[in-house]
Amino acid sequence: MRTVDIITKKRNGEELSSTEISYLVNGYVAGQIPDYQISAWLMASYFTGMTAAETSALTWAMIESGEQFDLSSVSAYLVDKHSTGGVGDKTSLIVAPIVAACGLMVPMMSGRSLGHTGGTLDKLDAILGYKSQLTQAEFLTTLSQAGFAMTGQTKEIVPADRLLYALRDVTATIESIPLITASILSKKYAEGAKGFVFDVKFGSGAFMKDQSSALTLAKSLIQTARHLGRDSLALLTDMSFPLGYCVGNYLEVEECLRCLQYHGDGLYKIEWYQGHLKVEGISATLMELSLELASSMLLLSPKYQNRGLAMQACIDALTSGRALQSFASNIEAQGGNFDLLLAQKYTRRARIKHELYADQDGYLTDWNALAVGNAATILGAGRSKLDDQVLADVGIVFHFARTAKVLKDQLIAEVYAEDSDSLAKALPLLTSSVRIEHHKPNQRPVVAQVVYPE
Amino acid sequence: MRTVDIITKKRNGEELSSTEISYLVNGYVAGQIPDYQISAWLMASYFTGMTAAETSALTWAMIESGEQFDLSSVSAYLVDKHSTGGVGDKTSLIVAPIVAACGLMVPMMSGRSLGHTGGTLDKLDAILGYKSQLTQAEFLTTLSQAGFAMTGQTKEIVPADRLLYALRDVTATIESIPLITASILSKKYAEGAKGFVFDVKFGSGAFMKDQSSALTLAKSLIQTARHLGRDSLALLTDMSFPLGYCVGNYLEVEECLRCLQYHGDGLYKIEWYQGHLKVEGISATLMELSLELASSMLLLSPKYQNRGLAMQACIDALTSGRALQSFASNIEAQGGNFDLLLAQKYTRRARIKHELYADQDGYLTDWNALAVGNAATILGAGRSKLDDQVLADVGIVFHFARTAKVLKDQLIAEVYAEDSDSLAKALPLLTSSVRIEHHKPNQRPVVAQVVYPE
Repeated sequence: MRTVDIITKKRNGEELSSTEISYLVNGYVAGQIPDYQISAWLMASYFTGMTAAETSALTWAMIESGEQFDLSSVSAYLVDKHSTGGVGDKTSLIVAPIVAACGLMVPMMSGRSLGHTGGTLDKLDAILGYKSQLTQAEFLTTLSQAGFAMTGQTKEIVPADRLLYALRDVTATIESIPLITASILSKKYAEGAKGFVFDVKFGSGAFMKDQSSALTLAKSLIQTARHLGRDSLALLTDMSFPLGYCVGNYLEVEECLRCLQYHGDGLYKIEWYQGHLKVEGISATLMELSLELASSMLLLSPKYQNRGLAMQACIDALTSGRALQSFASNIEAQGGNFDLLLAQKYTRRARIKHELYADQDGYLTDWNALAVGNAATILGAGRSKLDDQVLADVGIVFHFARTAKVLKDQLIAEVYAEDSDSLAKALPLLTSSVRIEHHKPNQRPVVAQVVYPE
Repeated sequence: MRTVDIITKKRNGEELSSTEISYLVNGYVAGQIPDYQISAWLMASYFTGMTAAETSALTWAMIESGEQFDLSSVSAYLVDKHSTGGVGDKTSLIVAPIVAACGLMVPMMSGRSLGHTGGTLDKLDAILGYKSQLTQAEFLTTLSQAGFAMTGQTKEIVPADRLLYALRDVTATIESIPLITASILSKKYAEGAKGFVFDVKFGSGAFMKDQSSALTLAKSLIQTARHLGRDSLALLTDMSFPLGYCVGNYLEVEECLRCLQYHGDGLYKIEWYQGHLKVEGISATLMELSLELASSMLLLSPKYQNRGLAMQACIDALTSGRALQSFASNIEAQGGNFDLLLAQKYTRRARIKHELYADQDGYLTDWNALAVGNAATILGAGRSKLDDQVLADVGIVFHFARTAKVLKDQLIAEVYAEDSDSLAKALPLLTSSVRIEHHKPNQRPVVAQVVYPE
């Protein structure tokens, strides 16, 4: 088998066999196939695409490049969610405790922020003492104690993805549905869950800019998961406005804590009546999405027969405080101090505070998520390059949700920065990305579509 | 400027600026841009193509990566030809002496055989003592003494092409019209000629398998040459049958010598009447093509006003013996011994001779050029890899031209090999590639089309 012949075949739009695909992946990981041939194959794949069989073969070859977490000792249904990345997307820290409180287990392997999107691991690291990188033994212990465990990818898990992703990043081959599918699924599969819910975002703050390409990716993920013997479904969700009222690592942990403390502190209010969910308040989109994700995860397990029962269970877990209890157990199990976290509430803010005011009366119709994400990165909440350091306590606190009515000179947001330089750079992005208009816009649902296996 | 942004732009089908293109070429040659990014750009270019401006910019950037031959001291019109590669294609050794004998000068920089196609340098090396690698000073001296000089590319000439070609070869990005155009033209331009005639071949033994893709390449070459201020035209020529009656390095030199010794030895016969050229005999296609190429080269110069005058001059140069005289001058100037070459005629053959016979009566309708070229390479006349050594005296001698009538058991070819292993491997290719049929096929002209600048 010659690498150049395989590249030629792909370039000509022919289907590669699983043997040819694993030859490429194994050869690359072993250092036997040079990166310039792999990048040519990636670019050819960008243009000619992959069949479902090829995507599955690639995913499988990537999984086999490393180790898999062995969670066979766990008897509960293991389910995880994956988000394609957003701004203010802290749903993992809300969803995992809810699902765990409903009797399932959530083995969660998360990533770090990159570009304008946040990363769960960076938020976890904002919790003092929290150990976000667990061994397999620690992962299993945490899972059994709290019902969910959170860790970063170890270097033994899918090494092919790290190599391929780094190469794709510098060769303009990121934006390929089969390559994205294999990258996401190989890691999810290797972490040992049985079911996956994919949160495929679209809009300004998302990787996919429109709903139709989000749908294409969702279908590819679901189809490939099924080929690999895994349950899954996907939500296509609106990422044109930041999720929740905070963007920033510690700020988002605090928002999660407050959301899990359901006792009417005003962040949101749930109405659940005859199969219809309505959430109102500053954290409404965050909580609506979290409940939809959590109930979708329950729905994958044999335990929950329909969406209504699953949603009721999630709401019960949340409002009863059992989800908060699971959250606390996890924090303690992974080295944090839950009491300290409670005590820090409202106190941990970066040094410099800057207030933003409405420049006219009207309705808040847009706060461009991409611009907000980029501003947060400039403040230090995210990273431009993989080896950048992030800051825990910087970020943005919004005082209004989308479509809210605001008055001229009313405080609409607070910006927290560690230094005046980054603040000066972030502010123009933030002020130019907000839109206040006279006519009240239609409320758009955060979940635009649920995609089930065909 | 970031390389990944340039790749993205090309991937998205946008036109790159000349600055961006030279950034890539210069960066690659300087070792500042890694090959995996260049191969991604090459593959993206394969899919999205290049505009005329981009192709010219690429060619120019490649030219500027190295030195150019300074032939400004030469007052004669400098003209060269380029062939896209064929089987039995020895036209350079016939065309250059004819054109030189007509008062133009031919600074010829040639390549070596690769795959099934032959290379002029390997044929020259079959001439004992011949120095096929000249310094610029030697090149100029030879040019003034013989009217033409032959050399290989020096490493100072277009280093970008050597790097890019080697990368394209292993990343399935050879077959791209703009990349082929830039590779050919950058070298031709750097060798200092003012006009180029392109012999763009099509058919089984050619790089381009059909006439329409040959036309596309021809147009691209002519257009880019004009952008660079060079005169050119192209011939689209049939390469489905080997050119002439010999394939093999020394054998082809001998055929050229015999063709230049025009005194009715039976290899071919020229008729030229009222603008119509007719050539008959075993070397007819070779000589028809050589005369068309040579007259096209004359036509580019201000000295020859029309094709008829140019062709008449070429025929005169050939039949008068002046072309042979120019050939002899070149051999002596480049270190060979013309008397020795004459004395060796019919004597230099590889050790083992094998004869092939017709298996039925009929007309010789095909002798697949690709198969013959591959057989010659197996015998040692060509190379599979760039660093293979070639043999001078192996090869194939055909006893009939295409469409000739043959009788069962008549000798149709001799095969010369240095060892029985290579002979045993080459024979099945040769015997399975010959076709003898009952009906006489139509004679196809070797020059299918002449392409002029628009």
